[in-house]
Amino acid sequence: MDVTVALDAMGGDYAPAETVAGAIDAVKEFPQIHVVLVGIEDSIRAELDKYQDYPKDRIRIEPATEIIDMGDVPTLAIKEKKNSSLVVAMKLVRDGKADAIVSAGSTGAILVGGQLVVGRIKGVKRPALCPFLPTKKGMSLLIDCGANVDAKPENLVQFAQMGSIYYENVMGKKNPTVGIVNIGTEEEKGNKLVKETGPLLKECKDINFIGSVEARDIPSNPSDVLVCEAFVGNVILKLFEGLALTFLGVIKKALYKSAKTKIGGLLIKSSLKEQLSLFDTKDQGGAPLLGLKGLVVKAHGNSKAFEIKTAIGQCITFKENDISGKIAKVVNQDE
Amino acid sequence: MDVTVALDAMGGDYAPAETVAGAIDAVKEFPQIHVVLVGIEDSIRAELDKYQDYPKDRIRIEPATEIIDMGDVPTLAIKEKKNSSLVVAMKLVRDGKADAIVSAGSTGAILVGGQLVVGRIKGVKRPALCPFLPTKKGMSLLIDCGANVDAKPENLVQFAQMGSIYYENVMGKKNPTVGIVNIGTEEEKGNKLVKETGPLLKECKDINFIGSVEARDIPSNPSDVLVCEAFVGNVILKLFEGLALTFLGVIKKALYKSAKTKIGGLLIKSSLKEQLSLFDTKDQGGAPLLGLKGLVVKAHGNSKAFEIKTAIGQCITFKENDISGKIAKVVNQDE
Repeated sequence: MDVTVALDAMGGDYAPAETVAGAIDAVKEFPQIHVVLVGIEDSIRAELDKYQDYPKDRIRIEPATEIIDMGDVPTLAIKEKKNSSLVVAMKLVRDGKADAIVSAGSTGAILVGGQLVVGRIKGVKRPALCPFLPTKKGMSLLIDCGANVDAKPENLVQFAQMGSIYYENVMGKKNPTVGIVNIGTEEEKGNKLVKETGPLLKECKDINFIGSVEARDIPSNPSDVLVCEAFVGNVILKLFEGLALTFLGVIKKALYKSAKTKIGGLLIKSSLKEQLSLFDTKDQGGAPLLGLKGLVVKAHGNSKAFEIKTAIGQCITFKENDISGKIAKVVNQDE
Repeated sequence: MDVTVALDAMGGDYAPAETVAGAIDAVKEFPQIHVVLVGIEDSIRAELDKYQDYPKDRIRIEPATEIIDMGDVPTLAIKEKKNSSLVVAMKLVRDGKADAIVSAGSTGAILVGGQLVVGRIKGVKRPALCPFLPTKKGMSLLIDCGANVDAKPENLVQFAQMGSIYYENVMGKKNPTVGIVNIGTEEEKGNKLVKETGPLLKECKDINFIGSVEARDIPSNPSDVLVCEAFVGNVILKLFEGLALTFLGVIKKALYKSAKTKIGGLLIKSSLKEQLSLFDTKDQGGAPLLGLKGLVVKAHGNSKAFEIKTAIGQCITFKENDISGKIAKVVNQDE
């Protein structure tokens, strides 16, 4: 099954050099992948010209003259920069010319564009951004980390349904467990939103709900899917990233302190790398924005070729398993 | 200035052995400290009898026949277990027989008891629990981490005021910076609560407000005081603890893998310890519940003698600097 991915070639800290490199790697590694590089034609062409040996029939350029940058206000940018690489790439999905779009650009613009340009699946009240969080025992899907805060209980129920479908199809685990992030595991604990959502999740037949999970347990993989409102999800994701970087920095500093510690560092290097690789999200690609008519994948802003290639590759599973179709079915049976 | 601390001798994972040991250490180290050990008389007496050489005139027992345990529902426990160590200790504060209470018991019961038994300072709408979070560059005060979720903007403004007073007096830093935890630093970012609170914090003359801080930056000490609603604060605190433990576990596992890594471990041990000590909260004592007529300190449930002693010691600064009086003044000038 052919899968066409529109890549926002101008999005991300290392665009277009690394986006183009990632696209080349993707068409080489995945025979079913076609990439449409969307962006400033000259810049993309200059990068492409650096490569010779790749299946040229599966990469093409779609010109776009503008770039949405991190300083742009998302809603305005989507409405006013109609000829930006992001908007043009999203239109390819909307018009059925691509199955998915991958961008390492502004998260806010991707979220707004996903809703305004690609559009929601009928019945989905709110799309949700859901990255994988690495834990000691595999990956947890954190849903929602988007910019649509102040969710309602019915939004969270749909997040649980969509997240379960995605987890099951991508991780190949039947009936993944679903927990709601809370400040305690007892039923009387929680804020208004969590207390109102709990009973609805319990009644929901499409998911394997196991109750509340505490933030302290997140690194130990308390459930496959972690449901929360976007403000809380964003805090979890960002603190996770920030602390991981901080601890790595602390370890490095300790290892580089003296000649003695440097020798110690050499002796533990491979063992430490092995342990830390548990927390590597590189192989997980980007975070999908679930609930839209086509697949929208947000890659990390600092993505290099490897992450871009992985994000493109993950679109294959998404299409082959018809994840959007499955979401549409579950969401509409409840109507 | 004498400072009398009522210690919930039965609260915490290692009570009463470690609570009594902590009390003994406290009266030995701090000449102004008097401790009232509140709890089951026989159990406390048995522990006390293990020690000979301490100023006996500054420790006394106040009998209480019940214990509130972690399985109790906080509101019911406070109302029904009138003769519990926690409630009896809190009554000593209410009745002016003690300046402060320290407990390593149920957080929920401490929060409820603080409000119902000790009582709020006039003008304080909601008390707030505020632990110190260790960062690469000193401590940040995270306010609120309590159990009163769904706060209003005016609550958060008071948290900022109370947190600033506490930070300034305990850390000795004039005009500490205050940030609000948010999902981005731009003004248009945030949920309803944060968007409504931002302008109020900007106008507030009692604090040094620096705007929004992202969770990613918390390990780098973006502000001295971090204001947030209790659900978010609880998630931050717990995830912080959980991830720190997880990373320590990962490092240990890497170091104990083989003979080679064990030698490496020996070479980096002291350097690593030095780096990790930055993240040690042991010396910070417990988290105060600010906004009450007396000082209520929540020590960690797994506190041993050292932490109990430190929590008792921190009551000295609180009384000497008249922190409750300063809070009352600031809160009521705004009325």
